[in-house]
Amino acid sequence: MKKYNFSAGPSTLPEEVLQQAAEAVLNLNNSGTSLIEISHRSKDFIAIMDEARSLVKKLMKLDDNHEVLYLQGGASLQFSMIPYNLLKNKAAYIDSGNFASSAIKEAKKIGSIEVLASSKDDKYTYIPKNFEIPKDVDYLHLTSNNTVYGTELKEFPETDVPLVCDMSSDILSRDIDFNKFGLIYAGAQKNIGPAGVTLVIVNKNLLGKTDRNLPSYLDYQIHIEKESMANTPPVFAVYATLLNLRWLDKQGGVSEIEKKNREKAALLYGEIDRNPLFRGVCVEEDRSLMNACFFLNDEATYKAKFDELVKQANIIGINGYRTVGGYRASIYNAMPLEGVQTLVNVMKELEKIA
Amino acid sequence: MKKYNFSAGPSTLPEEVLQQAAEAVLNLNNSGTSLIEISHRSKDFIAIMDEARSLVKKLMKLDDNHEVLYLQGGASLQFSMIPYNLLKNKAAYIDSGNFASSAIKEAKKIGSIEVLASSKDDKYTYIPKNFEIPKDVDYLHLTSNNTVYGTELKEFPETDVPLVCDMSSDILSRDIDFNKFGLIYAGAQKNIGPAGVTLVIVNKNLLGKTDRNLPSYLDYQIHIEKESMANTPPVFAVYATLLNLRWLDKQGGVSEIEKKNREKAALLYGEIDRNPLFRGVCVEEDRSLMNACFFLNDEATYKAKFDELVKQANIIGINGYRTVGGYRASIYNAMPLEGVQTLVNVMKELEKIA
Repeated sequence: MKKYNFSAGPSTLPEEVLQQAAEAVLNLNNSGTSLIEISHRSKDFIAIMDEARSLVKKLMKLDDNHEVLYLQGGASLQFSMIPYNLLKNKAAYIDSGNFASSAIKEAKKIGSIEVLASSKDDKYTYIPKNFEIPKDVDYLHLTSNNTVYGTELKEFPETDVPLVCDMSSDILSRDIDFNKFGLIYAGAQKNIGPAGVTLVIVNKNLLGKTDRNLPSYLDYQIHIEKESMANTPPVFAVYATLLNLRWLDKQGGVSEIEKKNREKAALLYGEIDRNPLFRGVCVEEDRSLMNACFFLNDEATYKAKFDELVKQANIIGINGYRTVGGYRASIYNAMPLEGVQTLVNVMKELEKIA
Repeated sequence: MKKYNFSAGPSTLPEEVLQQAAEAVLNLNNSGTSLIEISHRSKDFIAIMDEARSLVKKLMKLDDNHEVLYLQGGASLQFSMIPYNLLKNKAAYIDSGNFASSAIKEAKKIGSIEVLASSKDDKYTYIPKNFEIPKDVDYLHLTSNNTVYGTELKEFPETDVPLVCDMSSDILSRDIDFNKFGLIYAGAQKNIGPAGVTLVIVNKNLLGKTDRNLPSYLDYQIHIEKESMANTPPVFAVYATLLNLRWLDKQGGVSEIEKKNREKAALLYGEIDRNPLFRGVCVEEDRSLMNACFFLNDEATYKAKFDELVKQANIIGINGYRTVGGYRASIYNAMPLEGVQTLVNVMKELEKIA
């Protein structure tokens, strides 16, 4: 029996994507060869990479200034690649969570960083707002969604400063004007694919303005020129991401999936707020559509029972992050409404027998 | 019908590895969840990473100074990580092929590099030998096998200078004292797995001697401390590599696969030398056990016919590298003897009808 997997990442993928990915490992496009055996310079794989790039452009409605790259090393390597490629004098960062904090730490190794605002003192339970953006910074770095605490940036600043955004956990989950950004990056393993590939969208006009003699792998310009094939790409992860993008396209694209995401989030947060046994972790206005974090008000009395009911309902992956505790239900694009309804039913059941 | 895939990389994998990898994409260990959906911090995946590391230690008979890492970014990122982590004053490189040349180019961006020998002027058709190793270099960088030209380093220098070796295309193909090396690296997609993960084996005593404040992702020490889980690892590629390592272990390990590799290479080179229609690309004493490169003596007359026979025999991936031309049959660990025999039969058939 299929389980409802609420893991924060790697995370649930549509059943048809898993079926198609497994089939391709045995026999790609009825070619008699496996996806993971063929040359990345083969016609079959070049077509995969081309479609994976163009489908991102389509789904995000990107203009021709924005290049789509599939890289390795995760968001973690992007924490360094971004300042290496874009930081001349100074960059501004917003410290809205664990990953934002890591991005700041890595950028400080490379250049001058100004942290404009932080919610660290309040355990990152809200999104910092009302900061002033200096006019002289090379870019402003934001994190659109924080998986650990379940907060999400609802509105992006209007500014002439290039916006750089870590969208690892909510990319393609809601309709945004993606062309407003100088650079967007996302580890695939939350909302767009399996672990092992990182999507980077960069406005090419921002490049070539520093004089660092970068390692080739860290140089966006080289990856643009080589169309993400400067070296052997992570073939399986790119293909599984493509399958997932096709699935999203079939669902009607970003605006349609956003409706479903809002419906799922409303259902779950509604129950967290209604059910007297539970409470949310972060401030209401910043609640994430992707990661709903909540506590049992009385863990000592109800935790064992709730965990048992969760298990019986075939739900996995809802433990909170280790430094936060409680529960976290990640309800990415691929989580069906029935999964969320199942979790809500378990919460109601606990209330009934309490 | 299954094809014989002689691609240089990504390349052929054992049929049982493909079956098991496909099954895990649907249902890992009968858990009801997909390999590519579960958290990398889950019990199931931690066990996979642990076994993938320990099996390399077993197969390579590594001592406790040698740490095993699974990283992203390919050998290409290692070209930079190696000097970042190990280069204090000067490093020595041998220029034995395309990838060695790229490693030199990247290292020169980071520090002082001395190229001790090069076979570039002879189109890399032999392995440079008889060079003197300066005593004062931090390491000597070698490439054990050159896929493009089909040459292989048969004996490694005896020296007190730490040896760093790119073994991307012949790792685990022959019995070597791997403990002699300071650092070994290999993109998985040739002899040990699918694309998307890079194996690095490093003698930890060599680390911590430079004062660079490295990006975390580029710092071997951090990956050692975090047991290759400093960030989300490339889950599928690590698992498929583990399956391949298990397969190799079942074959009897490195010394047994070496016997088979020698038998396959002897069969193919025997035919290249015997058959008057063909000739080898590189000097005999440096011929690779992994990539046999050869030309038709008279392409104008025989190429179309040979290519047709190859296709009829369900053989794919034997075109030579674009700058070399001719043919290249990559006969990695996973290529069965029957595959090589099939290719040899086609070469004999061409001779018969010539």
